[in-house]
Amino acid sequence: MRPNGLHSVWDADKYALNAWLSIGSSYSAEVIANLPYDAVTVDLQHGMFDFDTALVMLQAISATNAVPMVRVSHNTGWMIQKLLDMGAYGVICPMIDTRADCEAFVRSMRYPPTGDRSFGPSRGLLYGGGDYAAHADETVLAWAMIETEAAIENLNDIVSVDGLDGIYIGPSDLSMTLDGKITNPLSPRVTEVIDLVIAAAHANKKRVGIFCPDAKFAREMIEKGCDLVTVMNDAGLVRQATSALIKDLESAKRVAAR
Amino acid sequence: MRPNGLHSVWDADKYALNAWLSIGSSYSAEVIANLPYDAVTVDLQHGMFDFDTALVMLQAISATNAVPMVRVSHNTGWMIQKLLDMGAYGVICPMIDTRADCEAFVRSMRYPPTGDRSFGPSRGLLYGGGDYAAHADETVLAWAMIETEAAIENLNDIVSVDGLDGIYIGPSDLSMTLDGKITNPLSPRVTEVIDLVIAAAHANKKRVGIFCPDAKFAREMIEKGCDLVTVMNDAGLVRQATSALIKDLESAKRVAAR
Amino acid sequence: MRPNGLHSVWDADKYALNAWLSIGSSYSAEVIANLPYDAVTVDLQHGMFDFDTALVMLQAISATNAVPMVRVSHNTGWMIQKLLDMGAYGVICPMIDTRADCEAFVRSMRYPPTGDRSFGPSRGLLYGGGDYAAHADETVLAWAMIETEAAIENLNDIVSVDGLDGIYIGPSDLSMTLDGKITNPLSPRVTEVIDLVIAAAHANKKRVGIFCPDAKFAREMIEKGCDLVTVMNDAGLVRQATSALIKDLESAKRVAAR
Amino acid sequence: MRPNGLHSVWDADKYALNAWLSIGSSYSAEVIANLPYDAVTVDLQHGMFDFDTALVMLQAISATNAVPMVRVSHNTGWMIQKLLDMGAYGVICPMIDTRADCEAFVRSMRYPPTGDRSFGPSRGLLYGGGDYAAHADETVLAWAMIETEAAIENLNDIVSVDGLDGIYIGPSDLSMTLDGKITNPLSPRVTEVIDLVIAAAHANKKRVGIFCPDAKFAREMIEKGCDLVTVMNDAGLVRQATSALIKDLESAKRVAAR
Amino acid sequence: MRPNGLHSVWDADKYALNAWLSIGSSYSAEVIANLPYDAVTVDLQHGMFDFDTALVMLQAISATNAVPMVRVSHNTGWMIQKLLDMGAYGVICPMIDTRADCEAFVRSMRYPPTGDRSFGPSRGLLYGGGDYAAHADETVLAWAMIETEAAIENLNDIVSVDGLDGIYIGPSDLSMTLDGKITNPLSPRVTEVIDLVIAAAHANKKRVGIFCPDAKFAREMIEKGCDLVTVMNDAGLVRQATSALIKDLESAKRVAAR
Amino acid sequence: MRPNGLHSVWDADKYALNAWLSIGSSYSAEVIANLPYDAVTVDLQHGMFDFDTALVMLQAISATNAVPMVRVSHNTGWMIQKLLDMGAYGVICPMIDTRADCEAFVRSMRYPPTGDRSFGPSRGLLYGGGDYAAHADETVLAWAMIETEAAIENLNDIVSVDGLDGIYIGPSDLSMTLDGKITNPLSPRVTEVIDLVIAAAHANKKRVGIFCPDAKFAREMIEKGCDLVTVMNDAGLVRQATSALIKDLESAKRVAAR
Repeated sequence: MRPNGLHSVWDADKYALNAWLSIGSSYSAEVIANLPYDAVTVDLQHGMFDFDTALVMLQAISATNAVPMVRVSHNTGWMIQKLLDMGAYGVICPMIDTRADCEAFVRSMRYPPTGDRSFGPSRGLLYGGGDYAAHADETVLAWAMIETEAAIENLNDIVSVDGLDGIYIGPSDLSMTLDGKITNPLSPRVTEVIDLVIAAAHANKKRVGIFCPDAKFAREMIEKGCDLVTVMNDAGLVRQATSALIKDLESAKRVAAR
Repeated sequence: MRPNGLHSVWDADKYALNAWLSIGSSYSAEVIANLPYDAVTVDLQHGMFDFDTALVMLQAISATNAVPMVRVSHNTGWMIQKLLDMGAYGVICPMIDTRADCEAFVRSMRYPPTGDRSFGPSRGLLYGGGDYAAHADETVLAWAMIETEAAIENLNDIVSVDGLDGIYIGPSDLSMTLDGKITNPLSPRVTEVIDLVIAAAHANKKRVGIFCPDAKFAREMIEKGCDLVTVMNDAGLVRQATSALIKDLESAKRVAAR
Repeated sequence: MRPNGLHSVWDADKYALNAWLSIGSSYSAEVIANLPYDAVTVDLQHGMFDFDTALVMLQAISATNAVPMVRVSHNTGWMIQKLLDMGAYGVICPMIDTRADCEAFVRSMRYPPTGDRSFGPSRGLLYGGGDYAAHADETVLAWAMIETEAAIENLNDIVSVDGLDGIYIGPSDLSMTLDGKITNPLSPRVTEVIDLVIAAAHANKKRVGIFCPDAKFAREMIEKGCDLVTVMNDAGLVRQATSALIKDLESAKRVAAR
Repeated sequence: MRPNGLHSVWDADKYALNAWLSIGSSYSAEVIANLPYDAVTVDLQHGMFDFDTALVMLQAISATNAVPMVRVSHNTGWMIQKLLDMGAYGVICPMIDTRADCEAFVRSMRYPPTGDRSFGPSRGLLYGGGDYAAHADETVLAWAMIETEAAIENLNDIVSVDGLDGIYIGPSDLSMTLDGKITNPLSPRVTEVIDLVIAAAHANKKRVGIFCPDAKFAREMIEKGCDLVTVMNDAGLVRQATSALIKDLESAKRVAAR
Repeated sequence: MRPNGLHSVWDADKYALNAWLSIGSSYSAEVIANLPYDAVTVDLQHGMFDFDTALVMLQAISATNAVPMVRVSHNTGWMIQKLLDMGAYGVICPMIDTRADCEAFVRSMRYPPTGDRSFGPSRGLLYGGGDYAAHADETVLAWAMIETEAAIENLNDIVSVDGLDGIYIGPSDLSMTLDGKITNPLSPRVTEVIDLVIAAAHANKKRVGIFCPDAKFAREMIEKGCDLVTVMNDAGLVRQATSALIKDLESAKRVAAR
Repeated sequence: MRPNGLHSVWDADKYALNAWLSIGSSYSAEVIANLPYDAVTVDLQHGMFDFDTALVMLQAISATNAVPMVRVSHNTGWMIQKLLDMGAYGVICPMIDTRADCEAFVRSMRYPPTGDRSFGPSRGLLYGGGDYAAHADETVLAWAMIETEAAIENLNDIVSVDGLDGIYIGPSDLSMTLDGKITNPLSPRVTEVIDLVIAAAHANKKRVGIFCPDAKFAREMIEKGCDLVTVMNDAGLVRQATSALIKDLESAKRVAAR
């Protein structure tokens, strides 16, 4: 089976740079997956598309070296399995609040006897190879999102679940649930929780991924030991480049033409 | 009929900033049309999509103040008219080499007796308003692209065509046809031709639009009096923001985590 | 944030006329949203399309003054939130049978601390504006559908839920669950329940919306004080106009031509 | 090969009622094709969709008894043939101005040695049957549109082309080219031309089809012997039913509810 | 209402041959439904598409005599009902482990008072006919999948559920849950369970359907009395024909050409 | 630039096996491109899809080692160039009847100064690499189809066009134009023409590709020295496998079950 490229990144003691897709376009996905990102995540939760479009995005990413991942809308088995069958090599699952949530998530990701994934890895076979079924369980990454007070209380129970590969942190949702609003910079409470999560995950040999609003925050997270950082989504990249452009054009003096 | 916002920009003696879409996505189109662009051009020639997708992109742009324009693949009447019926408020047409080409282009854009546009302005009526048919001819902009030696020889014949609104310059194609390759900076020959086109267009009361690879070039073009500048396409914005990001992350030192 | 136009309708002591979309087409949606409807509802439950198509329909409606609403398939959080993120300004949720159902529905619609909506209002930001997150909770309408015996028993518990904006009545489903069949005119039992629901909702300062098979029924509902009426869906409009047409053509006598 | 149902209509000395699709939706197409229309025309010229969508519309019509027809954007061979291969049983072609135009159109519709249609009737085989290739030429209808002064001058040359099945009249385009505007009722000049076309077509054993803005005009055309009438398109049906609805609701008095 | 063709097959004491679609294409669906299959199943669980595509596939199948069925991703009411509304005449539901699961599944399939299906049979009306609502419950087939130890333990409880029409066996999933791997030939344990299921189903007057990896296995299952056999999916057919082709070409000796 | 894999096949003195796609599905394309085909051709002429779908099919093929090719509908520059920009590594062009046709075709395929291809290789850059523009002309294959009497008369003029890479033979169209019908086996006249074309092409150092209805014919063509053979299209593979399956099931005896 085609190995998961993120393992090589980490084996080389590097952090992975992950792109985040909210635009439902196979071409946009392929443009981005051709840039120096180690992984590209197709976001089914807040992204503006659904499964039919996710398929062609995953196919487009598959023509590059970037690892195709997805974020699902919810910890729902059929949804997770449909995206695995479409060839996702990693699933980020929102709203893991308890050990039971996490165990159910991991079970959805794994074939029997470990889990309860239904058999029929249609595109998985094409992307992963003919021996997909034998190796999928150890190749495909399961990332749980920690987003609520409840999750923080159950942190150790969650991060110690066998078969879980990593924790993915969404600072916006964390701020909303902890502070009732998003602040920039993050509140001390949120910052403290992030540190807590990183420590607990690493203590349990799990990876840590995090969504970063900008490069400065990403640098801090890398320095704290995060294994995977996402910096803005695709729409954010477009907005940032446009802002830079408009600033660059400010000084232009137009000669009255006619 | 809803007026063409580009006229207001020019009446205020400003240049128009135009975005250029190669990504076939209504959401991407809407994200970009919500940024401070005066116009957004849906590129059917080198863009990675076709009419079905162009429709939803034009609809998405229509929910904003940006003027929806298209570049067609070719100077072919049915193609131009299909996009006008879809509500485009401007058409950029490649490969206008002769006065006859330009006249045919303009005729495709206008209703009889001026032109030979077929009647059936389906979405034009929705975006433009109930009196679309009466005012479309003077509202919708016709832009001819000058891209070849032949076109340069026929420059004055082309720019003087009645009903043409502007000339749009594609420096890449111009370089390919004049020099056989694209250089950065542009060759003196191409630069000279651009000046020639601007002068001829303005002398004939036509607008000038130009595609610019970067902000620096755009500033020069604005200072030369160009009426509309496009700076990179959507894929270019994504690439530029990613480059900036990767540069910003270079200094990040990762602590070995586990 | 862009205000919800339905509030202006009601502030002017008028009822709102709502269109109902079962046809999965952005153009059909835009045609209808340009007619004098105050709101247009994209029906994900019995409509013949899914999220990818719902997006372009919501975008098309957004280019008009009509308020974009959706009916979801089920009281499922990720589904409701996906459509809110796509810019819906109202959600009609089927099968609210208990106070707990209704509270869960309302929580899905609201950001923390009020609810548990996840943060990532992708298209919401474009349609609503940059301050979407701060005002979404009070702008976006939550409509619960009362469709079963159980719901009628729990009527007061449901209509008194804080944060709920209105009750939406589907007389067909009500007839099916109460009578086991759909009658025309409605059975006395169904009629009585409708009156009951209107009274309970208004007593609790909630709006009442209702699906009407024809104009006659809609007039009665308006006279009973309903705040929003839907009269047929898009397919119904097409059928009705065709029936009228065929009746109009009956008298045509064809001369044998050849 | 499955026979063309329009022949049965005409053999029974009836006129055919044709629906006209501008909305790009397979469901809308199926809803309409289930109503008592004898034929349903997928309009690629002014309709808001392209080939990918036309395919699913033709498939949806094929599940009913209505005859699937198309209007192409232009008299261009590959375009006509692509739609024939998709199973269209009739093609309406705009802008036939000369005998040469008409002959080229008919050649595109027919297999060698009669014409130059390329072989590969993919969906034609499914809808028409295994003997499609042997009978397509006599089954599939070729309709030429007469829309300009030139066409009227060449009327007899056009209607006498062998293999042409009918003339389709678009009164709007005729008004635009003859009068420079669309009038209601039609100008005497346009009315006279319509009579002329009907007479010339029938004299040459060709059918006559016509687009009608309303039922009154359709009745007149039926009485003049037209063989096929189209009354409004799908968007027009939706608009008409909405107008009727709003008129029906005018008298509704709303009781102030709260 | 249009009768369910599978009943005629069984009334004639024949087994039904069912095709299985994993490719999301209306044309592929129509090609296959035109072959001598009695039923065609659109697989939403492991197929590479979602509802928007399922719709056009169901429409394409509806233009043929094959019975349109679906396999849903999960025993979830809204999902089952959406596909019924799209005109499915049979639903295969995975992971029915208990009598309660099975009863919930059957309730989702039936209108009140028997079940809790919501009313709005949009495309059902087109495919089934105007009296769809009255006859859908007895026309549309409910197939439960037996896939786990738990299901086998509860076999008699499941097969005796009133309103259930059949059991569908997926040997791959059965092998995964019982043996932890897929073997060829099937393990004695799996074979024994299949026999058990067939006997229990038939004893309870339920039909038995089964997925077969090849014709040999299908023949055995037919001889055991299975009422419906599926042999490979669409991708499998393509793979098999390609293998045969490559074998046929092995002997070809190429003359060096240039 | 990524090299064209067909050159390696031919350099190893092997013939290339090409698949032919008429089904508009990215998944079907990927399934087939993962089988041992050297090239996969996306057929825009008789295939049941258009550009939007061709894009995702080309992307899916790009995730494999098969060379992505297209057949265009017509020798029309914008069409050819749009597909090249989408990353096609070969273009098969129908109806090349004269040297002028062939020269125009080749010019459309090549950048200035050799040809008149417009610059903007959007997806070409992603699939081919950053140096696409410099090497596309020698990497991308131009195949002309010989289909008519006229073409045969002009054979030597056509095959000697500089920059043309190969001739692609469609025996069906050849039979239609030469014999007025398709025979099996091919008529002596068609067989003779095929030999003529192979000889002329090879004498001019051009490759020869041919569409074959079955393996037997393909073996003959390989033995005649053809460089690339296509055997059936995707729909044909499905049909063939189903025929084999049905034959395999004939002997199955069903035990009456209930």
